[in-house]
Amino acid sequence: MAARKSINIGLMGLGVIGGGVVKVLTGKPDTLAREAGSKLVLKKVLEKDLAKHGALGVDRAIFTTSFEELVENPEIDLVVELMGGEHPAFEYMREALTHGKHVVTANKEVMSKHWAELLTAARDHNVVLRYEASVGGGIPLIAPFQEDLVANDISAIYAIVNGTTNYILTRMAKEGLDFSVALKNAQKLGYAEANPTNDIEGIDAAYKLAILTTIAFGTEVKPENVYHEGISRLQARDFRYARELGYAIKLLAIAKRTGDSIEARVHPVFIPEDSLLAKVDGVYNAILVEGDLVGQVIFYGEGAGPRATSSAVVSDIIKIAQDINSGKSSAPRLPFATGRTVMPMAEIKTRYYMRMSVADQAGVLAQISTILGDHAISISSVIQKETDPSTKIAEIVIMTHPAEEQAVQKALKETKHLGVVKEISNFVRVEA
Amino acid sequence: MAARKSINIGLMGLGVIGGGVVKVLTGKPDTLAREAGSKLVLKKVLEKDLAKHGALGVDRAIFTTSFEELVENPEIDLVVELMGGEHPAFEYMREALTHGKHVVTANKEVMSKHWAELLTAARDHNVVLRYEASVGGGIPLIAPFQEDLVANDISAIYAIVNGTTNYILTRMAKEGLDFSVALKNAQKLGYAEANPTNDIEGIDAAYKLAILTTIAFGTEVKPENVYHEGISRLQARDFRYARELGYAIKLLAIAKRTGDSIEARVHPVFIPEDSLLAKVDGVYNAILVEGDLVGQVIFYGEGAGPRATSSAVVSDIIKIAQDINSGKSSAPRLPFATGRTVMPMAEIKTRYYMRMSVADQAGVLAQISTILGDHAISISSVIQKETDPSTKIAEIVIMTHPAEEQAVQKALKETKHLGVVKEISNFVRVEA
Repeated sequence: MAARKSINIGLMGLGVIGGGVVKVLTGKPDTLAREAGSKLVLKKVLEKDLAKHGALGVDRAIFTTSFEELVENPEIDLVVELMGGEHPAFEYMREALTHGKHVVTANKEVMSKHWAELLTAARDHNVVLRYEASVGGGIPLIAPFQEDLVANDISAIYAIVNGTTNYILTRMAKEGLDFSVALKNAQKLGYAEANPTNDIEGIDAAYKLAILTTIAFGTEVKPENVYHEGISRLQARDFRYARELGYAIKLLAIAKRTGDSIEARVHPVFIPEDSLLAKVDGVYNAILVEGDLVGQVIFYGEGAGPRATSSAVVSDIIKIAQDINSGKSSAPRLPFATGRTVMPMAEIKTRYYMRMSVADQAGVLAQISTILGDHAISISSVIQKETDPSTKIAEIVIMTHPAEEQAVQKALKETKHLGVVKEISNFVRVEA
Repeated sequence: MAARKSINIGLMGLGVIGGGVVKVLTGKPDTLAREAGSKLVLKKVLEKDLAKHGALGVDRAIFTTSFEELVENPEIDLVVELMGGEHPAFEYMREALTHGKHVVTANKEVMSKHWAELLTAARDHNVVLRYEASVGGGIPLIAPFQEDLVANDISAIYAIVNGTTNYILTRMAKEGLDFSVALKNAQKLGYAEANPTNDIEGIDAAYKLAILTTIAFGTEVKPENVYHEGISRLQARDFRYARELGYAIKLLAIAKRTGDSIEARVHPVFIPEDSLLAKVDGVYNAILVEGDLVGQVIFYGEGAGPRATSSAVVSDIIKIAQDINSGKSSAPRLPFATGRTVMPMAEIKTRYYMRMSVADQAGVLAQISTILGDHAISISSVIQKETDPSTKIAEIVIMTHPAEEQAVQKALKETKHLGVVKEISNFVRVEA
């Protein structure tokens, strides 16, 4: 089959990421053409803000504000969606697929919420939908999971997939900063948005984990099935205790499979300070995958930013161009495994760190440990420092052996009502 | 195009790795068939040792000692080469390709020495040659380089690709063991072979670096163009000085490209102790890649062993089966970039650590630094500990700023002939 002279691209969204992709497409056309087997031609750009063509040197004539003009253009082979957000990105992608256009996207929200519908549309119209950039920026992840690790049964994923929170946690750990100060720093440097909710509450990480879990376990897992909890509750003293106990604190996206039961959750975690994930600092991402054959594999790199993201987007474009040129029929594979369900958070079992303020008097620890014992929660270690004599309040830190989440929640509620307990200051799950 | 009912495999070599692959093929046939789109059938096994069929449950009838019987079998679609060694593995692979069989191999020696000839044979006969397992065991590397990072210009690779030496260096660093003791430990545990030369002298790592460099820079780099130096010169005291200076010692495979000039070298290196590569312990491998778009990406995992290796081999088999089923024409891409050449080792520039024994008398450091200065080598730091009064011999450690290899070698030769210098005990290159 002869290679096509050119592959024509319709780009939707010329923001930071879209601009990055345009820079790559126009910056090294010969390299890309050599790899793709065809010239990659930017045919249409859907963008309201016409001023954007100036800085990027895009020909004004290819700008449009009409999605129909883009999707109905018979010359366009491939639509690149970089608008972000759920709507109208989802509808536009679906429309593009049903018009027989291949689609490349970096949109984690749409992919995590509408994975099956979009993949089905792609299959039905014999086109390809690629979304490597939706998780981990430029780090190869989706393709390795779907292609290179395909002989494995994946049993677990432990992932740092949100650079904003990892940056904040790194500053808190290294400089003893409080959360609010570290967040402001991150905002000042452009690592956190003015409205940081999606990042700091673990929503962004939950989108990404839903995608990874769906691929790894062959079962569609939606974001609403992923438990998520953010980092705003963490305090400088939690980091001090963590260090004392030999741990680092990271916001991890965790997925595990045992038989047909899947765990999928995002929350702060104590992890051993000598583990490799504990060494992942700043805005970097790292994804640890456990397979029955391969053992533990880690993928590490920049999880965001226009350059890293465009590495994934443009590689996806090139793969589609190669498939077009090689005449490969390209029905995407949908999940095969059925009957697998996400375990309710209440049923997970893990270890816990608990920090509480108590009255400095005899028998306090006995009362607390009685409650924990009643809920089959076994203590592995306790730290109690000398009390501040002025307040007569002591701080106790308890590390438990593995226990069931709902038992821990009940025990914490009961402990809180003990007269001698002033406050349950924090609790954090622990992964060994 | 309809999927084939079965894809028939001819396996050459039923050693540890071959046995691992057979276990996977027979252990989860349904999973593999679902991924491949066809049943994967072991049709012939080329192996002299007929006893091996017993433990693995392979039907005795499919064993053969005749390569012709395997390669001329028209039913066989795909030959898996796991014999190891250069001959006759190379000739058998070439023969298989020219007979129109797809080939999967884990053979780093053959791939590094005969890459272009084998790829040309594959292209000429419109078949695929896959070799993911030849570097980094089960860690996805070849495919990410060739497919997922394809939009990047790769500028550098820093890789721990030999588990045996990394295990030995880890024991030396953590327990202060001498090289010979650590080597014996590794041999006892099966991490080093009885004849460990290929591993400890950096030959195995040079094979792997030749493959990675060829792919990353699009120019065939042969093992004989890769400078290699082993770890046997390292002593416990080098690790102590490294720690004091804030470094770890690793055997790194390093490749860099500046314009048309390529560096490709394997030798022990001081790397900053807080870098992620410094934290890679034991038999694990890690490959850091630097691309213009993606920045730094690291791939980490088990670099050897039958299970990890079979993860890569079986995934390669599945990819070929998918390509057969999707009707993809599969001409492999050969290097495009011409005119790129490997820089002679004498011309590389890096920093150096030097350790020497000198007479404890006035003016020694002045004499040494004069020689270094004459060769345009600038000192960045010096350690001189208190002298053992009984021997009157002092040990000096010098760290240099970046200098040219040949200048350093000349300076070391001259220094050695100074009357006050008893011995140049060691020198190790430093990467920041």
